[in-house]
Amino acid sequence: MSAKVRLYVDHPLGAGQSVPLDRDQAHYLFGVMRLAVGAAVALFNGRDGEWQAEVAEAGKRGGVLACVAQSKPLQLPPDLWLLFAPIKKARTDFIVEKAAEMGAARILPVATDFTNSERIRQDRLQAHAVEAAEQCGGTYVPEVTELQKLAALLDHWPADRQLMFCDEAEVGQRLFLDSADSGAAAGPWAILIGPEGGFSPAERKRLHAMPHTHVVSLGPRILRADTAAVAAMTLWQHTLGDW
Amino acid sequence: MSAKVRLYVDHPLGAGQSVPLDRDQAHYLFGVMRLAVGAAVALFNGRDGEWQAEVAEAGKRGGVLACVAQSKPLQLPPDLWLLFAPIKKARTDFIVEKAAEMGAARILPVATDFTNSERIRQDRLQAHAVEAAEQCGGTYVPEVTELQKLAALLDHWPADRQLMFCDEAEVGQRLFLDSADSGAAAGPWAILIGPEGGFSPAERKRLHAMPHTHVVSLGPRILRADTAAVAAMTLWQHTLGDW
Repeated sequence: MSAKVRLYVDHPLGAGQSVPLDRDQAHYLFGVMRLAVGAAVALFNGRDGEWQAEVAEAGKRGGVLACVAQSKPLQLPPDLWLLFAPIKKARTDFIVEKAAEMGAARILPVATDFTNSERIRQDRLQAHAVEAAEQCGGTYVPEVTELQKLAALLDHWPADRQLMFCDEAEVGQRLFLDSADSGAAAGPWAILIGPEGGFSPAERKRLHAMPHTHVVSLGPRILRADTAAVAAMTLWQHTLGDW
Repeated sequence: MSAKVRLYVDHPLGAGQSVPLDRDQAHYLFGVMRLAVGAAVALFNGRDGEWQAEVAEAGKRGGVLACVAQSKPLQLPPDLWLLFAPIKKARTDFIVEKAAEMGAARILPVATDFTNSERIRQDRLQAHAVEAAEQCGGTYVPEVTELQKLAALLDHWPADRQLMFCDEAEVGQRLFLDSADSGAAAGPWAILIGPEGGFSPAERKRLHAMPHTHVVSLGPRILRADTAAVAAMTLWQHTLGDW
């Protein structure tokens, strides 16, 4: 592939399709990356795979790209949700970036009993997921949902979705998903990473009692939430996912 | 454990042992954390396990802690080296932090043919490893070595050390360490993570030709170096390490 720039656009892609650029995109392609008419750009929109395109018009406030040929089919990640309790800003950004790289289908910030952060900027986190998808060569962008209460999410937990519960109180207690867990590989899954202060006793009791919960330990050292997120997604992808 | 503060000290720990504090440590314990005489502090030095101590003297420029009782034995990580090519500052810091959390015994920054960073601050990276060990409850601090050329390191590669080579050119090609690799579990290992631009053809050829190289793929998406480091250490610890 000759394109050095890879861009997410919210526009249909296909043979002969023209893709208009907004001001920010034009600034990035023509101001920052210094592309001229005829230059190659790789595009994806999360639905139509990856397309090689050429700059057809370049301006300060906009421009047009012309799709040339599809370079990758759409590759959806496994149906894996990542639930995590927001932590400090930089580490929350990091978790979203890593979830997109590692191949989560959906990213759900949840407020737990011991969560300190009351608010998130959903739009900013979604932009991080887009940027990570641009970087990692993915053709899919996971949706980042608004912050919701963990208890409310569990109230309406989908009956067919398995839950990998990374309980730091179980440090060193158990290795990982066993073959019985693997039997549930076909269906949808979610991974739940706790906040820095851990889960409350009430939350732990409820999570342990749920029929689709799989309690997992992430080794003998206590991992920060961002490390735990990457480690848990690695184990899941390796055992049950698309690695 | 009642101690809220966990501190690395470069001093022997043992029953009845007094531990003098330098100016920075005194500032942190008494100025920032507001501890007074009699307050509990958990100490480790990488050699003697974790000890519960009490503040015996508190001053602006120094102080003394008195060891009370050992609360954890020394737990050494597996003999795992992490070799990585330094990238942007924040992500290099992150790799060192994660390597300490995940349980690497030694962290070796290496300059590859395509490495952009010419310099590292070894003292700053070592401080990050100490801080991560303080946070994660470990009793060991991995040594961060000075930057060295990958080629020079391979010239004197230890005959008994297996090498897990995370080659991004193999994306999607192979799952992971197989049972044949696991046969080498007993001996020492190293993980090698490439720079953002990948390895040079000459480096790849040499690495593939080495007798103890195990080529590993980290899934179908291209991972950033910092993500790859955590993912590779997770797979190694899960398959061959202490998880």
